Amino acid sequence: MERTPPRVVMKFGGTSVADLDRIRSVAKRVQSQVNAGFEVTVVVSAMSGETNRLVDFCESLSPLYDPKEYDAVVATGEEVTSGLLAIALQALGVNARSFQGWQVPIRTDDAHGKARIESIDGDALISCMKAGQVPVIAGFQGVSAAGRVTTLGRGGSDTSAVALAAAVKADRCDIYTDVDGIYTTDPRIVPKARKLSKITYEEMLELASVGAKVLQTRSVELAMKERVRVQVLSSFSDEAPAENGHLPGSLVVDEDEIVEQELVTGIAYSRDEAKISMRRIPDRPGIAAAIFGPLSENNINVDMIVQSTGEDGMTNMTFTTSRTDLARAMAVIEAARPDIQYGEVVTDDAVVKISVVGVGMRSHAGVASTMFRTLSARGINIEVISTSEIKVSVLISAEYAELAIRALHSAYGLDAA
Amino acid sequence: MERTPPRVVMKFGGTSVADLDRIRSVAKRVQSQVNAGFEVTVVVSAMSGETNRLVDFCESLSPLYDPKEYDAVVATGEEVTSGLLAIALQALGVNARSFQGWQVPIRTDDAHGKARIESIDGDALISCMKAGQVPVIAGFQGVSAAGRVTTLGRGGSDTSAVALAAAVKADRCDIYTDVDGIYTTDPRIVPKARKLSKITYEEMLELASVGAKVLQTRSVELAMKERVRVQVLSSFSDEAPAENGHLPGSLVVDEDEIVEQELVTGIAYSRDEAKISMRRIPDRPGIAAAIFGPLSENNINVDMIVQSTGEDGMTNMTFTTSRTDLARAMAVIEAARPDIQYGEVVTDDAVVKISVVGVGMRSHAGVASTMFRTLSARGINIEVISTSEIKVSVLISAEYAELAIRALHSAYGLDAA
Repeated sequence: MERTPPRVVMKFGGTSVADLDRIRSVAKRVQSQVNAGFEVTVVVSAMSGETNRLVDFCESLSPLYDPKEYDAVVATGEEVTSGLLAIALQALGVNARSFQGWQVPIRTDDAHGKARIESIDGDALISCMKAGQVPVIAGFQGVSAAGRVTTLGRGGSDTSAVALAAAVKADRCDIYTDVDGIYTTDPRIVPKARKLSKITYEEMLELASVGAKVLQTRSVELAMKERVRVQVLSSFSDEAPAENGHLPGSLVVDEDEIVEQELVTGIAYSRDEAKISMRRIPDRPGIAAAIFGPLSENNINVDMIVQSTGEDGMTNMTFTTSRTDLARAMAVIEAARPDIQYGEVVTDDAVVKISVVGVGMRSHAGVASTMFRTLSARGINIEVISTSEIKVSVLISAEYAELAIRALHSAYGLDAA
Repeated sequence: MERTPPRVVMKFGGTSVADLDRIRSVAKRVQSQVNAGFEVTVVVSAMSGETNRLVDFCESLSPLYDPKEYDAVVATGEEVTSGLLAIALQALGVNARSFQGWQVPIRTDDAHGKARIESIDGDALISCMKAGQVPVIAGFQGVSAAGRVTTLGRGGSDTSAVALAAAVKADRCDIYTDVDGIYTTDPRIVPKARKLSKITYEEMLELASVGAKVLQTRSVELAMKERVRVQVLSSFSDEAPAENGHLPGSLVVDEDEIVEQELVTGIAYSRDEAKISMRRIPDRPGIAAAIFGPLSENNINVDMIVQSTGEDGMTNMTFTTSRTDLARAMAVIEAARPDIQYGEVVTDDAVVKISVVGVGMRSHAGVASTMFRTLSARGINIEVISTSEIKVSVLISAEYAELAIRALHSAYGLDAA
């Protein structure tokens, strides 16, 4: 049920506003939505390279910079883009004005550098739109209760856009990126990958968490919570924007909106994995807590866990962390050796996690067994398995990654005709 | 009468904060004032080149850019510097935090691009300083009643600094520039020019208005009105800052503070002059209004004016404008020919205005005649003369500029020993 006139939030990332020519292109794209009768709010990132330049300044002056000052410096990148896009829109005859985070206001907590949005007052923006004006909002930023500028962390402009779409009760939040939608898997690996016209929030979260980084995870969580319909589409494609009901990108929506649900929606992979195997641990109650407690206290996320117990009263524990955390995880484990009394510990970071995702598997058995059979037929050994309600993940040797993804893509009938 | 602890506003221009190394140097300079027991508020410009970069963006997108958006974009330059300097100060162990214009707040009118400060709430800054913290404020900017970011126009950071010094009741406002003070004349022309240790507000205004652009005119007017003592000094000199009563720069102060007043304080010149002579105008009441009314309506400033009347009932009118206004002035005069009925009009832009300035001349005659005699002795013809209470200006042919300045500098006893 769209309102009249329909209302849309359009968000453009850094590569979409990388230089003045691209800002002019974005202005034309916004103009065409305005001309098509939409009430439009725009959210922009910093021109690409700009955030890195500002971050480098801060880090050069002090590796232990004050995050409050870091935020004040880095947030200016989006402020520049919002003002420039307002000028570019006015040059096309589109009534527009910029808003910085504190002007909306977008209120956040005071966790500088990774703040969370607490509330957005949509009144000023709705008044703008009703008066025929396009508000152009600096993404990625807000203001704390103390009146300091905050930033939401890398990729935070997606979250800004979704939160603003909720605040102005938009019919849709369009995220313009450098890809033209969400695919059944990485098209660089599987040329027959298909663009999905619709995907559920839950599936998108599983895909995002296993490495398909089209949308920031937090923005999807927020969209799901606020029931914001999100479209991912390309800012470089010439395909006409949605004026007549046809949407060129991929729509992330509630499950109810998807009539014909596929069993498996997509296949994701993550190379940022490392496996740690602890062997010959004297088995006793509390051994898991003795291992994972210290890791958690050191902010090391553990993902897949497998425990196998032998007949000699000894147990083996295998688990995965992100590759970047491996060295820190090993330090924690070495320090805990007197407590745990393991025999040896072996690591392997030449591993990849492959996941099949689909809400359809809730009501259908056999998804996991198809996966295991398909991999086995190619002689691929599965090292660890984990499952959730709508996902099956396996850890395999990294050298088999492409082979496994292509085989699974075919096995689940995802290949384009 | 200095307060205890004494309080100073330190302002650093664009070349003083041009890169990270210079920002570190500025931080050290601020630290040494803090260590010397001062309560310090800092005001910064954008890193040099940054404002031009942002202005170019706006102008490229639309030559007729919206000044509200221009302000939102351009003001970010100073915001970056204020955050970076706060980080650099913290790295030295100096407690510091940045303020953007709206955070102070610095309230201005809504004349975007050339806004005037209406009021500054100094409470937050004074609380900071009393708590041992150095507020680092983005200069050149403020916030309008409508909550939009405003800028004060080029050079506006000087005005920010003086206004802030008044708001926090500072004992002094130190303006760090790329020159080490105010000189009796341009040292590039007269190597024997002397640095002035003190100069009055009125003299500084006359010097600024005739081309000695060390301080923005508006900042001097504001300093005079608010009785803010302003020191001009170099941010590149190694001379120790004022810790013991000795001030290394030039102090701009009230006349009462200057005990031994020189007859002439300085000699300024301006090359941005053009002369317009209208000849054989039928003399009648209202002729001056017929000439200068249309010029004024077209925002063309007229400076020196001389009228001479012949015996034939015809009059001649000679006046000067800035060189950049000459073409527009001529267009206005041509259009007014039917009204004025002048015989001919002659222009000359190879002229220079030389001014001797000094509050001492209020109480001493003979300053003007010394000037005329000195120039006459060098065979320099004076084309136009104008005088104010503390200034005598003459217009001469541009080719004599250096000769005239050197001769006058000697004649008034200003040469360094």
